[in-house]
Amino acid sequence: MTEPTRTSLEEQVLLRIERTRRSRPRVRDEHITLAHGAGGKATHSLIDAVFLDAFRNPLLEPLGDGAHIGETAFTTDSFVVTPLFFPGGDIGDLAVNGTVNDLAMCGARPRHLSAAFILEEGFPVAHLRRITASMAAAAQAAGVQIVTGDTKVVERGKADGCYIITSGVGTLDRPARLSAAAARPGDAVIVSGPIGEHGITIMLARGELDIEADLTSDTAPLADLAAGLLDACDDGQVRCLRDATRGGVATVLNEIAEASKVAIIVNEDIIPVRPDVRGACELLGIDPLYVACEGRMVAVVARECAETALAALHEHPLGRDAAIVGQVNDDPPGLVLLKTTFGGTRIVDLLVGDPLPRIC
Amino acid sequence: MTEPTRTSLEEQVLLRIERTRRSRPRVRDEHITLAHGAGGKATHSLIDAVFLDAFRNPLLEPLGDGAHIGETAFTTDSFVVTPLFFPGGDIGDLAVNGTVNDLAMCGARPRHLSAAFILEEGFPVAHLRRITASMAAAAQAAGVQIVTGDTKVVERGKADGCYIITSGVGTLDRPARLSAAAARPGDAVIVSGPIGEHGITIMLARGELDIEADLTSDTAPLADLAAGLLDACDDGQVRCLRDATRGGVATVLNEIAEASKVAIIVNEDIIPVRPDVRGACELLGIDPLYVACEGRMVAVVARECAETALAALHEHPLGRDAAIVGQVNDDPPGLVLLKTTFGGTRIVDLLVGDPLPRIC
Repeated sequence: MTEPTRTSLEEQVLLRIERTRRSRPRVRDEHITLAHGAGGKATHSLIDAVFLDAFRNPLLEPLGDGAHIGETAFTTDSFVVTPLFFPGGDIGDLAVNGTVNDLAMCGARPRHLSAAFILEEGFPVAHLRRITASMAAAAQAAGVQIVTGDTKVVERGKADGCYIITSGVGTLDRPARLSAAAARPGDAVIVSGPIGEHGITIMLARGELDIEADLTSDTAPLADLAAGLLDACDDGQVRCLRDATRGGVATVLNEIAEASKVAIIVNEDIIPVRPDVRGACELLGIDPLYVACEGRMVAVVARECAETALAALHEHPLGRDAAIVGQVNDDPPGLVLLKTTFGGTRIVDLLVGDPLPRIC
Repeated sequence: MTEPTRTSLEEQVLLRIERTRRSRPRVRDEHITLAHGAGGKATHSLIDAVFLDAFRNPLLEPLGDGAHIGETAFTTDSFVVTPLFFPGGDIGDLAVNGTVNDLAMCGARPRHLSAAFILEEGFPVAHLRRITASMAAAAQAAGVQIVTGDTKVVERGKADGCYIITSGVGTLDRPARLSAAAARPGDAVIVSGPIGEHGITIMLARGELDIEADLTSDTAPLADLAAGLLDACDDGQVRCLRDATRGGVATVLNEIAEASKVAIIVNEDIIPVRPDVRGACELLGIDPLYVACEGRMVAVVARECAETALAALHEHPLGRDAAIVGQVNDDPPGLVLLKTTFGGTRIVDLLVGDPLPRIC
């Protein structure tokens, strides 16, 4: 693998900035593709050019993990993962944890969830029971209640067994508001644990790959971990929390770099990746930075509380392997740069296409 | 058509009461059928035996159109209507109005909506734009904002173009809480307008029936209509509001009769049904009482404010044809009885099966 030279990196950066300046968000495709659901470039242009264009309002525009409405956080997420059951979890606890985490990433205490089910005719009731039991256990573990719901059934072939859509409301008890636009030069970038386990587990569970690996999904509720981190720092020192789901850590970092108009530099060597995940990624030709986690978060914190923040994460079972993986710089704004194991530097761009469809 | 004699009606009532007493809710089927999504008997047993069994908590148990969390109402609804576009509306305004109405039926002022999209690979972006434009217009008309969302894409054949799931939060500004369990003997039962237009419009839009009728969906936001009714009556005089969607007015009345342990007697002659709807229902062999509306509500109000309530509804364009269609009795508890045009009386039971799948 050859690394770009310093000059070619600078050229790339200039080119990228120029391209961004010229382009207004638009959807080039006439039809929806799987890439529109991948969390990367296509998803971003669909959101900007279709959804934001139609619904534009001050509460929606920050495009965070949820909306801040006074002292309430409100969020929604749909789950179309396949297979429905996989090592370490199923669509049920994934759907509960996913929405719990979106609320936690707003700095909210998750309180109440809704659950909507789109079921395919012929879906075994026993599977549905197993899924709802798993949702109930996940809700209890996260300290939330499922308080309202809806069920629709579509004909055979018109869904894929079961889709679940959870929405959540939580209380914003803290004065400071977290935001992807709040990162400042000098801040530290923390990842709460090893990345990519959920995505690779799902890929292996599909049985299409001839890889043996002892992996389970990392699906977990992050509200306690996030609260511990926020408690450990002063108000405002934690700039931003994001769970690294679709599109992985790379996508989250790009969103923060763009919203905050800063550069983010991360060190490949320090980013925690389990050997089984790294091995599977190499065989699949995927960078683990783009692989979805469902129980890991990225935190951007003020430099002066970075060590305190890290210590707080290490105290929680879900944050044992947390690491400071990089920092925020002022230049080049909007870009994520990776210092590679080989001593080079490369741009970590938003994902194009979808190497891992139906991951959540 | 022969009507049951008085004696056979009494026998039916006794039999039904005995059957209800003996049966605990359970799902007899091993697989999900379309009937589980129809809002009738199968939906009720699925909710009781699977969802309520797994998630049971005091906020969920009333099983209203939404949950009451302090001063906030919270609700969710999924939309899988086919076709996506139909006379009078599309899946977009249906999804906004549906959740706005669920909040309004809680007595809440609808404020903020989330929107989740499950899109099928290959779905035309132009259709999505048309749908989001229609959602934006419906949100503006109802005075709500779409503040958060999610998009997933599934492979060709794994959805049906576009499913939309909206959740909503609203503020409960009034002291009295509406409840399906609050109906009392002597109360009046009001229907806000002609029934069944949405359901029959969808059936005709599928083009499978050789019927010509000049019908459009009744999809509309009911928040203003409901607020006008609540303002006109004293606190507590409006017992219950329900929008008559899946399963129609018959289902709503059964839910109220069961929750309140009262009988509800309605007069077939007084229930407003447009001639085109009545004609289509006769040809289809469907009772209009079971056909979905998306802009009509059932109100149970104290006898002493019934005329005031009716006058308030008549003042609003969506309530021009409102009528007092029946009353609440104490006996036989849990049953809905219809006084027919022919002078007889028959039990209006919960729907069995699903004559109109994918109606919303």
